[in-house]
Amino acid sequence: KNILVIPGDGIGPEVTTWGKAVLEKIAEKFGHEFTYGEALMGHAGIEATGNPLPDETLAKAKASDAILFGAIGHIKYDNDPSAKVRPEQGLLKIRKELGLYANLRPIMLFDELLDASSLKPEVLRGTDILFFRELTGDVYFGEKKRSEDRNTASDLMIYHRYEVERIARKAYEAARVRSKRLCSVDKANVLEASRLWREVVQELAPQYPDVETEHMFIDNAAMQLVKNPKKFDVVLTANLFGDILTDEASQIAGSMGMLASASVGDGTGFFEPIHGSAHDIAGQDKANPLASILSVALMLEISFGLKEEAKQVTAAIDKVLKDGYRTGDIADANTDKTKILGTKAMG
Amino acid sequence: KNILVIPGDGIGPEVTTWGKAVLEKIAEKFGHEFTYGEALMGHAGIEATGNPLPDETLAKAKASDAILFGAIGHIKYDNDPSAKVRPEQGLLKIRKELGLYANLRPIMLFDELLDASSLKPEVLRGTDILFFRELTGDVYFGEKKRSEDRNTASDLMIYHRYEVERIARKAYEAARVRSKRLCSVDKANVLEASRLWREVVQELAPQYPDVETEHMFIDNAAMQLVKNPKKFDVVLTANLFGDILTDEASQIAGSMGMLASASVGDGTGFFEPIHGSAHDIAGQDKANPLASILSVALMLEISFGLKEEAKQVTAAIDKVLKDGYRTGDIADANTDKTKILGTKAMG
Ligand SMILES: CC(C)[C@H](C(=O)O)[C@@H](O)C(=O)O
Ligand SMILES: CC(C)[C@H](C(=O)O)[C@@H](O)C(=O)O
Repeated sequence: KNILVIPGDGIGPEVTTWGKAVLEKIAEKFGHEFTYGEALMGHAGIEATGNPLPDETLAKAKASDAILFGAIGHIKYDNDPSAKVRPEQGLLKIRKELGLYANLRPIMLFDELLDASSLKPEVLRGTDILFFRELTGDVYFGEKKRSEDRNTASDLMIYHRYEVERIARKAYEAARVRSKRLCSVDKANVLEASRLWREVVQELAPQYPDVETEHMFIDNAAMQLVKNPKKFDVVLTANLFGDILTDEASQIAGSMGMLASASVGDGTGFFEPIHGSAHDIAGQDKANPLASILSVALMLEISFGLKEEAKQVTAAIDKVLKDGYRTGDIADANTDKTKILGTKAMG
Repeated sequence: KNILVIPGDGIGPEVTTWGKAVLEKIAEKFGHEFTYGEALMGHAGIEATGNPLPDETLAKAKASDAILFGAIGHIKYDNDPSAKVRPEQGLLKIRKELGLYANLRPIMLFDELLDASSLKPEVLRGTDILFFRELTGDVYFGEKKRSEDRNTASDLMIYHRYEVERIARKAYEAARVRSKRLCSVDKANVLEASRLWREVVQELAPQYPDVETEHMFIDNAAMQLVKNPKKFDVVLTANLFGDILTDEASQIAGSMGMLASASVGDGTGFFEPIHGSAHDIAGQDKANPLASILSVALMLEISFGLKEEAKQVTAAIDKVLKDGYRTGDIADANTDKTKILGTKAMG
């Protein structure tokens, strides 16, 4: 298997280093042969070539069997709303070009981290959610306009039936082999795109009679996720709502530093932490590499069908946490100070 | 003062009954003269006239000094994405017609309810947030389209400079007399409308040098709100993001049943709980009337400048809670069963 590593920006390079190290260890232990490429994207791509997604990166991506990505973004662009070239364009473009329309974000809860969350342990215990976020449509990719006098700006929130259907099917299939509950989140009381979304899900539902379908408005879902996260199992939602809900849900897992995601669709799978580039701690050996390592577990399972290997990665993380080791972001008041580790030691 | 009561749908009539009763009590106690009108909106409007915002309601609204509103929506329409006439259209239209561009949602924390939240008390204690949600623009009001074959649907997310500026000024002015911190929430790394939003806020910031301005992406804000709500003071955001964030934030206050909102702008002020119509408990004497009563406190203060009166309403709620009385939604494991009240008794 040929794996492309795209470290990206900020803490991306630090965390992917350890994701890759875990891949090497798994290959050694199980006798697999993994080869690695590396490529630039985001701010790193702009600095080197002027392009947030250099042609060479895209070509390499298409030719690889799976992609391990770090993080994207730079504060410089965040504060310059008029910048024409932006790091994030690289990520959006690669999602589109590779047809990565389904972004899977499992909210995993390590028992040892129950106390690291701002939510009460009794509210959290037993939570196990799998988000299906649509990733190549919505207001992310609809036409963007700025009036000539620059006083009016717009983005088109748009969905086509086939886009909703293909991600909904993936979510239903996952629900079938999980607890057979699917919650579709939209804002159908206000948005036409959401009304199409709901129509399509309603049409598909009878084809999955073993799955119980619920529809929920995004505002209510954002509330219920804090109030009673256990009520969710498979959550299906659009690109923008999925972006917001999954970041919110990261607090269930104690920290963004613990959440991995898999983007799949027509071709090569793309695996990345859901955290951002975190420039404020970049290069300081502070970032939590576990989300990158969990992304590797997802890659092993989803792209390569290596279930046992994936399980061993997760088990290793579980053991490290049981032994009391923490990075700063998941340490709590009870953590033994000597067991608070940097990126390298945790990796 | 002439107050229009619009009970609306579901639990709306039950809760506004008690909001109005509190207004009557205040008038009596302080020697004010309040007169009341009543009008239909939402599903109630559709049933009676075919129109979710009957002309008569709009005329009465424009002629009144303040409006007390209940709730809107009906499950019948939620599950029928192709319905042409919908209750919510009434609420959206009245917001637009009255020029209610600023929706103020204070997240108040009653000490007694610290344990009713799913968040840890130590995370919550000291939280005091005032949301400024833009209310007459964004993807709510941009053009909606459905292709002839019905397979493509879209909504235009659009903002004009003046729309951002007028709400931003209101938020800055509030920040000045609070803790002098303003957090503007957008998705400027992806959306053009957000880039305009950020530009306008950046331009205004130097005019409020005493206020510290921060910009945050919506996904991050949804996360931080759970992780560390205390870090927020005045939060300024667009219509859709505000809808999501404020519902999420309701869990800070223990329940949606505790949150009131004020919509203000060019004319008559509009006061309503942030909760919905909750048809599942409508007519069962279960709804929490405190959000409607807190809406009355906002009306007294904001529309009529009656600060002392507003304070006494809030103090009365505080006392009731201190005495241990709760509606079901804010009861916790420690609540004395005999002190769990219905809507009437709490009112
Ligand atoms: C960096 C940004 C464009 C991206 C998104 O909004 O999709 C990120 O927040 C994510 O969730 O992957
Ligand atoms: C009922 C609905 C149209 C409304 C909105 O989305 O604005 C509600 O959720 C609110 O927050 O007032």
